[in-house]
Amino acid sequence: MVILSVTGRAPINIAVVKYWGKKDERLILPLNGSISGTLDLTHMCATTTVAISESFSEDQFWLNGLECSLSARFSIVLEAIKKRALENETIDREKLSWKIHICSKNNFPTAAGLASSAAGLACLVFCLARLYNIDGDVSGIARLGSGSACRSMYGGFVEWMVGECRDGRDSVAKQIIPANHWPNMAVLILVVNAGRKHTSSTSGMQTSVQTSRLLEHRAKLVVPDHIDLMRGALLQKDFQTFAQVTMKDSNSMHAVCMDTYPPIHYLTHVSHHIINLVHSINNYFRTCKVAYTFDAGPNACLYLLDDDLPTILSLIRYFYPKIQNVEEGGTDDDACRDGDVDEFVRGRKVKVDAVNEELINSMNITVLPGALSYVISTKIGDGPVLLSADDSLLNLETGLPHGELL
Amino acid sequence: MVILSVTGRAPINIAVVKYWGKKDERLILPLNGSISGTLDLTHMCATTTVAISESFSEDQFWLNGLECSLSARFSIVLEAIKKRALENETIDREKLSWKIHICSKNNFPTAAGLASSAAGLACLVFCLARLYNIDGDVSGIARLGSGSACRSMYGGFVEWMVGECRDGRDSVAKQIIPANHWPNMAVLILVVNAGRKHTSSTSGMQTSVQTSRLLEHRAKLVVPDHIDLMRGALLQKDFQTFAQVTMKDSNSMHAVCMDTYPPIHYLTHVSHHIINLVHSINNYFRTCKVAYTFDAGPNACLYLLDDDLPTILSLIRYFYPKIQNVEEGGTDDDACRDGDVDEFVRGRKVKVDAVNEELINSMNITVLPGALSYVISTKIGDGPVLLSADDSLLNLETGLPHGELL
Repeated sequence: MVILSVTGRAPINIAVVKYWGKKDERLILPLNGSISGTLDLTHMCATTTVAISESFSEDQFWLNGLECSLSARFSIVLEAIKKRALENETIDREKLSWKIHICSKNNFPTAAGLASSAAGLACLVFCLARLYNIDGDVSGIARLGSGSACRSMYGGFVEWMVGECRDGRDSVAKQIIPANHWPNMAVLILVVNAGRKHTSSTSGMQTSVQTSRLLEHRAKLVVPDHIDLMRGALLQKDFQTFAQVTMKDSNSMHAVCMDTYPPIHYLTHVSHHIINLVHSINNYFRTCKVAYTFDAGPNACLYLLDDDLPTILSLIRYFYPKIQNVEEGGTDDDACRDGDVDEFVRGRKVKVDAVNEELINSMNITVLPGALSYVISTKIGDGPVLLSADDSLLNLETGLPHGELL
Repeated sequence: MVILSVTGRAPINIAVVKYWGKKDERLILPLNGSISGTLDLTHMCATTTVAISESFSEDQFWLNGLECSLSARFSIVLEAIKKRALENETIDREKLSWKIHICSKNNFPTAAGLASSAAGLACLVFCLARLYNIDGDVSGIARLGSGSACRSMYGGFVEWMVGECRDGRDSVAKQIIPANHWPNMAVLILVVNAGRKHTSSTSGMQTSVQTSRLLEHRAKLVVPDHIDLMRGALLQKDFQTFAQVTMKDSNSMHAVCMDTYPPIHYLTHVSHHIINLVHSINNYFRTCKVAYTFDAGPNACLYLLDDDLPTILSLIRYFYPKIQNVEEGGTDDDACRDGDVDEFVRGRKVKVDAVNEELINSMNITVLPGALSYVISTKIGDGPVLLSADDSLLNLETGLPHGELL
C-alpha cells in the first residue's frame, strides 16, 4: 500500500492586541487586526499526521486518540487546500482524489482554556500544505478554519491583518519579529482554579457584534492605534509600551464584553485579583515589570522579561499558595509535567527568588490560597515544524493510529 | 434671640442613565446628560435644618450628631445661594451677613453605598433657598455641591441636562415625569455583603476621563441615544424599553470602568450573579420583568413593577438566603427598620410569593447564602419637602442641636 504522509507540530498563540468580532462569519474576516506572541512548541503544541492513499476508502479523523467526524471547519480547510493545489498544479490530480486520514493530538490541558482550535487548525493546514506541495503563505486558509489559527502559522510576534478585500485574500498573518529578535521575552500562564463553563468566544463575539455600542469604536479607532504602538514596541523591544498596550487592549476587549447585552463576564474575582497584583507590582517598581492579558476565560497570561521571572514567580507563589488535595480542574492536566520536579510551576525551568518582604508589605493585597491550579512557564517560540516519519501518529503501513487493528 | 430657620427633607436618586465623567471639575459639568429615579422619602432621606441669627458668632455644621467643619462643597453652595439672594434682593442685606448653623442627618446606612452626598447637598440647597426666599430652580446650585445632587431636587424621574454653556447655567435638572405618572414603579436595593473599600466615584471618573478610550464614545454617542429612548419610555410607561436601556446603560458605564487604566472594578461576583439572575428571570418570562443598575459599588438597584414584586422577592430570598449571625456590614444599618417585622426586607411592606419551583429549576443559577446583607424595598417618590418647626434638628431657642448646651 502506498501511503503519502506528513507529520508536523504547531504552536498556540496568545494575543496582545485582541481579535473580538467578525465582519464576515463565513470567511472569518475580523473587524480589526490583531497581534499575538507564538508560544514555544516545547511546552504546548498540537501534533498532526496527515496521510493519503489510493487504498483508503474514506476520510477519517482521530483527535486525542478518539475517532471523530471531520468538523465543518476541517472540511473547509481541506477543500481550500485542495483547490489551491489544483489551481497551482502542485500534485497529480489523481492523488487529490485519494481519501485522507488525519490524526491529531494536543499536549496541553483543556482546563487551561487555551485556544486548542488555533494550534490544531494551524497544524492541519501546515501538514496539508506540505502533503500537497503547496508553497507560499497558507495562513489565509488557516484563518478559514479558526480565525486566530492563522497567527500560529508563524513564530515570534505575528499580526493578523484586518485586510480590505471582501473575499478575505489579504486577511492573512504576517510575522512582525521572529522569536530570536526579543529572546528574553518570557510567558507565564496562570491557570485559574475555576470549574464553571464560559460563553464560547465564537458566540460571545457574535453577541458583542450584535449588541455592543462600544465594539465598533474599539475596532475602528482603539485597536488600530494599539496595533501601531505594538508594532513599534516589538521592533524596538520597548517593554514599557508593549506592557501598557497589552494590558489596555485586554481591558478594552473585556470592557466590550461587559457592554454586550446580556453582558459577558469572563473574568472572575481571581482574574481581577491578578490584575490588581500586576498593577501593584508595577507601581512598586515604578516601571512595568509584567503585563497581563486575558482571553475568553479567567486564566491570565503574563508577559515579562527573563530577568524578572524569579521575582514575579516568588510573588505568584506567595499570593496564590497551592492547597494540598485541591481539585485539579480536569483529568487532562498531565501536560507540561514531563520531568517537572515542581507540580505548581510547569514547563520551562525557572529559578524562584525568596519573597521580598518589603515589597509584599507595601502592596496591601490579600493572599488567595488555592486560587490557581498551576502555572505554565514558557517563552516566545517558532512557528510550525515538520517532524520525521518516526514521529508519525499513524502507522504508515496501515494508515491507522498506532495500536489500531485493520 | 431672633432665629430664622427652615427644616426640610430631600430624597436620594438612582440613575438609570448614568453620569460618569466631568468636562469641568470645578463647575461639575458632566460629559453627558443623565436620568434618575427619585426614591420615596419615607424610607431613605436626608433631613436638614438651617438657621441664621444675628447672635450666632460663627458658621457651624453638625452631621449625624457630630460637629464637623463645613466642607468646601457646602461652602460653595452657601456662597452661590447668597449670591443669588443678593442679586435678586430676596432678603435684607443685613440678614445675609448673619452666621449660619446647619444640622443634617441621613437615615440610610452608609453600608448601602448610596449616594448620601446627593441627598445631603440637595437638602441643604432646598433649605437655604427657602431660608433666603429664593424662587425658581436652584438645581444648578445643588450641582455645584455634588453633581448628581441636582437630580434630587425633583421627584419622579429627572434629567440632568448636559448643557452647552461654559459657565454651566444650563446644566440643571428637569423633571421628565412626576412620581404619580408611573405610580406602580417599584425599587429594590440589594445591599451586598462586602467589606472592601472601593474607588470613590469622584476619583474613578477622573481616571476614566484621563485613560478610557471608550468613555468619549459613550458620552458622545451612546448616552444621548439612551437619554432619548429613556425619555420616551418614561412618558409612555414602556417598561420593556425602560428596563433594557437601564441595564445597557449600567453595563456601558461599568465597561468604561473596565477600560480605565488601571481598570476599576466596582462589581463583585455577587453583582455579576445578580446580573445573571435578572437575565434568567427575564428570559424565563420572555419579557423584561426586572432591570438592574449598579453605581460605584457592588450593590444592585432593581427597578420593577408592583405586580411583579412578590415573585421577584421570592427569588431574591431563595437565591440569597440570609445566614444567621453573618456580619452586618456596619454599625449604622438601623435605617429603614422602623417597625419592620422582617429584618431582611426593609422599608416598604410587600407580599412575598411562595417560590415557583418550575422557574427555579429552569434557571441553572447557584444559591449564594449570605451574599446580601439585606434588601431595601421602596418606590419612586416626590422631591424635597418642607418640614415644620416641630421637626427642627436645632433647638430654635439656642440655635444648637437638641441636647447640646450653650
